[in-house]
Amino acid sequence: MAKNVAPDSTRRSEKSRRAIYDAALALVGEVGYPKTTIEGIAARAGVGKQTIYRWWSSKAEVLMEAFLDLGEQAGGESYAIPDTGDLAADLKAVLRATVDELKDPRFEVPSRALAAEGVVNEELGRKFVEKLLEPSLQLYVARLRSAQQAGDVRPEIDPRIALELFVSPLAQRWLQYSGPISYEYTDTLVDYALYGLAPR
Amino acid sequence: MAKNVAPDSTRRSEKSRRAIYDAALALVGEVGYPKTTIEGIAARAGVGKQTIYRWWSSKAEVLMEAFLDLGEQAGGESYAIPDTGDLAADLKAVLRATVDELKDPRFEVPSRALAAEGVVNEELGRKFVEKLLEPSLQLYVARLRSAQQAGDVRPEIDPRIALELFVSPLAQRWLQYSGPISYEYTDTLVDYALYGLAPR
Repeated sequence: MAKNVAPDSTRRSEKSRRAIYDAALALVGEVGYPKTTIEGIAARAGVGKQTIYRWWSSKAEVLMEAFLDLGEQAGGESYAIPDTGDLAADLKAVLRATVDELKDPRFEVPSRALAAEGVVNEELGRKFVEKLLEPSLQLYVARLRSAQQAGDVRPEIDPRIALELFVSPLAQRWLQYSGPISYEYTDTLVDYALYGLAPR
Repeated sequence: MAKNVAPDSTRRSEKSRRAIYDAALALVGEVGYPKTTIEGIAARAGVGKQTIYRWWSSKAEVLMEAFLDLGEQAGGESYAIPDTGDLAADLKAVLRATVDELKDPRFEVPSRALAAEGVVNEELGRKFVEKLLEPSLQLYVARLRSAQQAGDVRPEIDPRIALELFVSPLAQRWLQYSGPISYEYTDTLVDYALYGLAPR
C-alpha cells in the first residue's frame, strides 16, 4: 500500500492545482483583479487558503501560473512558430491562431481583467509582460532571426521592434475595441509589415 | 448694467466648466473610473451636481469632454498632421509629439484610468474610441491618402490599417509597459513601416 501514497498525493495535488487555476481565472473575470483575493479563490476551489499559500506567495503569482497553464492547454504558439521557409505564411498562421484565442471567452474574459489592471498597476503590468507577454514575443524574435539568416528579412532590422508591426495592431484592436479582428486583417498586417507601405 | 449679464455668466460658466474638467480628470486618475461619480466631481469642482447634469448626462460624457479639452490645450496633433511632402519626416514629428504627451503626467494618469476601464467595459471602450481615438487616427488616414496621391505610398494600401503599423506599437508599449518609449523607437517604427522588413 505504501507505494501508492506518493502517486495518490500527486494526483490530489494536480486536481487541487487545476481547481485553483480555474477558480482564479473565473473570479478575476467576474469581479476584476482588485477584488480577487486568495480567500475567494480558495473558497471557490474548495480548498483551504493554506493550500494556496503553500504553493504561491500572492494572488498575482496564482493568476500568472493559471494563464500559463491555460496557454499550455490551448497548445498553439506556446513553444515555437513554424519555420516552413515561407515567412509570410508562418506569421499569418500564428496570427490566425491568436485571433481564435483572443475571441475564445475562456481566454478573453480573464485576460481582459488582468490586462486592464496592468494598465494602471505598473508593477503587475511589468510582471504580466515578463511572465506571459515577452516569452511569446520572443518566439517571433527567433522566427525573424531565422528569416534574417535565410535572407528574407534585412540584416539591419531589429527583430524585437519588427514583430510589433504585426503583433501590436492586433493587440490594440483587441484591448481597445478600436477595430474588427479577422484573418483577413492579420494577413494584411503581415503583408504590409514585410513589404512596406512605400512603392518598391 | 443689464448688458454685462451675458458676458459675466459666460465667464462664470467657462470657469465652472474648466473646474469640472480638472476635477473629473484628477478624480479618475486617483480612484479609477468605477469609483468616480458625478457627486464626487461636483464636490471637488465646488459646484452643485445639478450644474453638471445641466451640461452632461453621465460621468462618461464629462470625462470624454475633459479629455478632448486636455488635447486641445496641448495643441499638437489635434487638427492635422503636417504635410511637408516628406512623409517619413512628418510621421516621425507627430509620433515624437505623441511620445511627449504619453509621458506627461497630466495626460498619463487620467488616460490610463480611462483606458483600463475601456479594456473591461466594452461600451465605454467603444465610446472612447469613437470620441477620442478614432478622430486622431483619421488624421493619419488623411496624411497617408495625401501620400498615396503623391506616389509615396502604394495605391492598394488601406490607410486605416497601414497607420496601425507605427501607431499601435507605441500604444501597446505605453498601455502594457511592454517596452521603452523614445524618439529613436518611433523613428524606427516609421522607417520599418514605410520600407518593410523584407529585402528591397
